Amino acid sequence: MNAPGTFEILALDQSSGARRGRLWTAHGAVETPAFMPVGTQATVKGMTPHEVAALGAGIVLGNTYHLAIRPGVDIIEACGGLHRFMGWTGPILTDSGGFQVFSLATLRKIQPDGVSFQSHVDGTRLFLGPREAMEIQRRLGSDIAMAFDECPPYPCDREYACQAVDRTLSWAALCVQQRAAGSEQLVFGIVQGGVYGDLRRRCARELTAMGFDGYAVGGVSVGEPEAELLASVREGVAGLPAARPRYLMGVGVLRQMVESVAMGVDMFDCIMPTRLARHGTALTRTGAYPVKAGAWKCDPRPVELGCTCYTCATFSRAYVRHLLNANEILGARLLTGHNLHRYLETMREVRQAIEDGVFTEWRKEFLHGTMDQEGATACIV
Amino acid sequence: MNAPGTFEILALDQSSGARRGRLWTAHGAVETPAFMPVGTQATVKGMTPHEVAALGAGIVLGNTYHLAIRPGVDIIEACGGLHRFMGWTGPILTDSGGFQVFSLATLRKIQPDGVSFQSHVDGTRLFLGPREAMEIQRRLGSDIAMAFDECPPYPCDREYACQAVDRTLSWAALCVQQRAAGSEQLVFGIVQGGVYGDLRRRCARELTAMGFDGYAVGGVSVGEPEAELLASVREGVAGLPAARPRYLMGVGVLRQMVESVAMGVDMFDCIMPTRLARHGTALTRTGAYPVKAGAWKCDPRPVELGCTCYTCATFSRAYVRHLLNANEILGARLLTGHNLHRYLETMREVRQAIEDGVFTEWRKEFLHGTMDQEGATACIV
Repeated sequence: MNAPGTFEILALDQSSGARRGRLWTAHGAVETPAFMPVGTQATVKGMTPHEVAALGAGIVLGNTYHLAIRPGVDIIEACGGLHRFMGWTGPILTDSGGFQVFSLATLRKIQPDGVSFQSHVDGTRLFLGPREAMEIQRRLGSDIAMAFDECPPYPCDREYACQAVDRTLSWAALCVQQRAAGSEQLVFGIVQGGVYGDLRRRCARELTAMGFDGYAVGGVSVGEPEAELLASVREGVAGLPAARPRYLMGVGVLRQMVESVAMGVDMFDCIMPTRLARHGTALTRTGAYPVKAGAWKCDPRPVELGCTCYTCATFSRAYVRHLLNANEILGARLLTGHNLHRYLETMREVRQAIEDGVFTEWRKEFLHGTMDQEGATACIV
Repeated sequence: MNAPGTFEILALDQSSGARRGRLWTAHGAVETPAFMPVGTQATVKGMTPHEVAALGAGIVLGNTYHLAIRPGVDIIEACGGLHRFMGWTGPILTDSGGFQVFSLATLRKIQPDGVSFQSHVDGTRLFLGPREAMEIQRRLGSDIAMAFDECPPYPCDREYACQAVDRTLSWAALCVQQRAAGSEQLVFGIVQGGVYGDLRRRCARELTAMGFDGYAVGGVSVGEPEAELLASVREGVAGLPAARPRYLMGVGVLRQMVESVAMGVDMFDCIMPTRLARHGTALTRTGAYPVKAGAWKCDPRPVELGCTCYTCATFSRAYVRHLLNANEILGARLLTGHNLHRYLETMREVRQAIEDGVFTEWRKEFLHGTMDQEGATACIV
């Protein structure tokens, strides 16, 4: 058991920026590169915490914005904090709410010390800024808190991106000030800058000077082409210290995750495997498959051939398809379990490959076998 | 391993009609009195078959009408039958579809050899009679098939109830003829007769003469007062042979189930524990509680004090309430698990009490502690 914040780099890939690490938190260590399943409303949708742990997740994410609106911080605090409330005993990372304020909320008004907005649930007028975001995350008791940032949309002109970086930096400074002495909660800063490489590098450098426990690249995967996304990751990472963990926010296309690992990213989160599952898309090594369509109607084989997850070990494509088409809860559950397994299994393979010094070969093979995960193109194996 | 159809009576209560039995099927024995969770569309809603087994269910129910419409018998047969399709290795009872034809389907036309109707899913014109119902159940491969019957509504005049009994008896005779020699599938006849005791007794006697493997009391819990329901059970059971299992269809109020056990009923099914769970009602020893209401907002205690189920051992009322109010799948899952546990646990207690010769005392105590399960009246313990 090392002190929270300790980041051990266990292995470095020789021909890329990939690294195999271990981040210590107050609720145990996270083996990196890691995928963090998203538990927006204090639950990874459809799954019990024990199932999420059994799938191999070492850390989950909670959404400050959503939890603050429903059920509210008072209730979670009265129930012993977010870990106890949701029955998850491992590390939890909470976002700051910045992304949701800039994507979900309406009637937004940006002020020097935060953002005034209307709740997307009931229209209540709320205010969230660096002070509020840090205070809520402190009360939730997460292991890693994220700084409150401004996530600009895509496309976004240089002038606005520059203003958003300035605001993000001034808010980041306030977040650092908010840290209670002796707190075991880690705080990560967030690199913004849109598609402007120099802004990303400047933002990363200035955040680094503030001395965060880790750093995230935010404001990506907001609609930009893949080449721009990967360029943003590269520029963002370039300005960050090698000794601290790097978290790429919201990127969940497996191919892009593997490419980002090669650039030195250690942590990922994305709603994609869970959301696509509920909508009937199976994510496999070889691509995305529309389960509800007719092709699997009578197919007695597992969702993914060779997959070792509970769903694939137990049920047929025809059964999973039937459940999804009949709107049965179990259909969403079984496919969520499979998709999360695929993501967590891929991260296990990534970690092993880096340890074994064969990441470059593994990556080549993986990218060769992977189709466009976003396109949900049907291709029955 | 005894031959399918063997019904062992292991203990008889001295001061009531209650009996402790064991019914053998091609997929193992069912300990009775038993509650059968309903798996309408080849899934007990929200649960994996492994979870249902772990909760202590020894047999589940599948709905011929629903399965025949979606996904269709061809698909289930191609996937190796209903057991393999849904991943349930224990006994399965399928109903005949009669109840659904008379409650869900529209544009119904009763003919001598069955019923022509429109599917409630897509309006397709379909026909279901004793021959079709038996053939579908044979192809599904259930362990216990139910005869195709006519379930009249409540209220229902004596003349119509009498006609329905006549049709039910002539269809029952056709179902018996349909049985393949050497088949391991048991067939149960269904006693109808509405609230008319003499019709119930006549129906039971005439069915008994046909030599079914077991007998059900159907057409109850269709809106009649509890006293009439229990009277129908008493009259139905009175005409049935003691040596064969007795199944009370669709009755799922715990108090009524316990009273029916005292009259000699061995098997039950009901959607109540699973459906009420999805709608946010917790069923406990002391009554029904509306989880979504405000009373449990900040309550860190388990859904039912002293309950040993996974939900109660792991999560708070406040958390389950939050999940249900946020429309999270896990909320429905957790409450379904609890409600099924309560039902299966009650049946375990019933069996133990009969074995120990203390059923009458147990029953008195149970009924004393139980409130009206139907009323869903709030009463925080």
